[in-house]
Amino acid sequence: MSHIAYVNGRYVPQQHAQVHIEDRGYQFADGVYEVVYLWKGCPVDYAAHIQRLGRSLEELEIPPPMSWGALTSIIKEVVRRNRIVQGIVYLQINRGVAARNHAYSRTLRPSLIITVKHGTGPSEKVANRGVKVVSAADIRWARRDIKSVALLPNILAKQKAADAKAFEAVLHTPEGIVTEASASNVWIVAKDKTLVTHPATKDILGGVTRATILKLARASGYKVTERPFSVKEMRAAKEVFLTGTTTFVMPVVQIDQHTVANGAPGEFALDLRNRYTHYMNSGNPETAWNV
Amino acid sequence: MSHIAYVNGRYVPQQHAQVHIEDRGYQFADGVYEVVYLWKGCPVDYAAHIQRLGRSLEELEIPPPMSWGALTSIIKEVVRRNRIVQGIVYLQINRGVAARNHAYSRTLRPSLIITVKHGTGPSEKVANRGVKVVSAADIRWARRDIKSVALLPNILAKQKAADAKAFEAVLHTPEGIVTEASASNVWIVAKDKTLVTHPATKDILGGVTRATILKLARASGYKVTERPFSVKEMRAAKEVFLTGTTTFVMPVVQIDQHTVANGAPGEFALDLRNRYTHYMNSGNPETAWNV
Repeated sequence: MSHIAYVNGRYVPQQHAQVHIEDRGYQFADGVYEVVYLWKGCPVDYAAHIQRLGRSLEELEIPPPMSWGALTSIIKEVVRRNRIVQGIVYLQINRGVAARNHAYSRTLRPSLIITVKHGTGPSEKVANRGVKVVSAADIRWARRDIKSVALLPNILAKQKAADAKAFEAVLHTPEGIVTEASASNVWIVAKDKTLVTHPATKDILGGVTRATILKLARASGYKVTERPFSVKEMRAAKEVFLTGTTTFVMPVVQIDQHTVANGAPGEFALDLRNRYTHYMNSGNPETAWNV
Repeated sequence: MSHIAYVNGRYVPQQHAQVHIEDRGYQFADGVYEVVYLWKGCPVDYAAHIQRLGRSLEELEIPPPMSWGALTSIIKEVVRRNRIVQGIVYLQINRGVAARNHAYSRTLRPSLIITVKHGTGPSEKVANRGVKVVSAADIRWARRDIKSVALLPNILAKQKAADAKAFEAVLHTPEGIVTEASASNVWIVAKDKTLVTHPATKDILGGVTRATILKLARASGYKVTERPFSVKEMRAAKEVFLTGTTTFVMPVVQIDQHTVANGAPGEFALDLRNRYTHYMNSGNPETAWNV
């Protein structure tokens, strides 16, 4: 079956899905995106993704191309046409098409593309073994809180991980502070058993899964602190794990050549992964698309 | 007459020039570009632009889509088909089309688009009056030496300038060091009459026009130094000016609310602009396209 994509008002076969070369997303990375996980037909944390999308657009002065209700109807239609029950929705909004010029008009009609694809996320088997990560300098711009398509530094970091057969690249500032990973947030379990993750400042993208894990962890009685931590503290941590839309909760057992704790996935990480799976299972098809 | 663009092997009417939504330039800003000025039918500093293009590609591990000779033939054909004598060539090379995934394959076929348009650059009238600039924080990533399409911070800065009816935004680090402007390089004439511009490190894009002005200035007996300077030093400078492919040499007479020197374009800037115009006029159609 050919995939169907939504592109600026039309449902088209994905292999023929095209945009104009002067779409500002193409020439200036002037756009934002979201990735939403579909689990058993329900989007996970859909309202939070839409809220973040709205914020990214607002920060860049890109008007939403339509109401959230209308957008949701289109996403549901793309999901339906592709018969996807488990996988990801990819949604990109750019400022629009205009003759190339750095400065922009505030009256452009934004571009909207939506695709979906089947996918199961990292298997339980991978999570139960834990993953290796590499460390890399965080060379991104200063507004990492905006989920923009200017992802060049992220892909270079992810490629560094791929070349090392690692799952992710954990990014750090010149001062050695861990910000996040190339496409996920980083957590440690500190010596005193507190869960620690970088605060949601402009230095990181505030993950939707990160926020859900914060809630689930607090509700489950974990001690949780949002504060920066160093590469050194991470290496000495009792546990290290990643969270993300398609990562869920992923225990890290190796950082570069350094083994984390005893080299096995941490107990807190596996418990939180389990809680997150239960959380995803609790999705209600009647309300999951509410914004 | 409809403009003709070159897109991945085809010459197409520009209004219908399209690329696939999974072109990595669109979803990841995974591409590079060049803008070359055409003056009386001759490209200005063509070899230097191609050399920089090659370097940008190499830094990102994107293979050139074809030989420079073949690329040059296509550019000339686009120029010919559009009958452009004065204006700009825009050239973008992306890593290629692939199912969305941060990590990349090294065997993708790169995308190539080329457009040209008529344009005269800023008029002598503007240069003889001088321009206003605004200052803005340089929030870009750490590899500004790569001419990538991840231009979101640049367009936000340029928009700040446009909103203030200014010509450009001059960018500075948190420490107050001037790096460059959103789409041009920044120069000052220091108290001792030395021309000063930021060295071509990873903190700036090494402008082709900047390099030419360095050569012309040195050949004309100017004292020239490549060193960082502060916003404070710039405000107190005898002259401030910008250089760029479509800017040539542009005197700055106002920075935010601050008037530069006596508020008139500087003598060095106007002289260098004049020398640059002579330099462009010396272009030889027989050799201008050599790489």
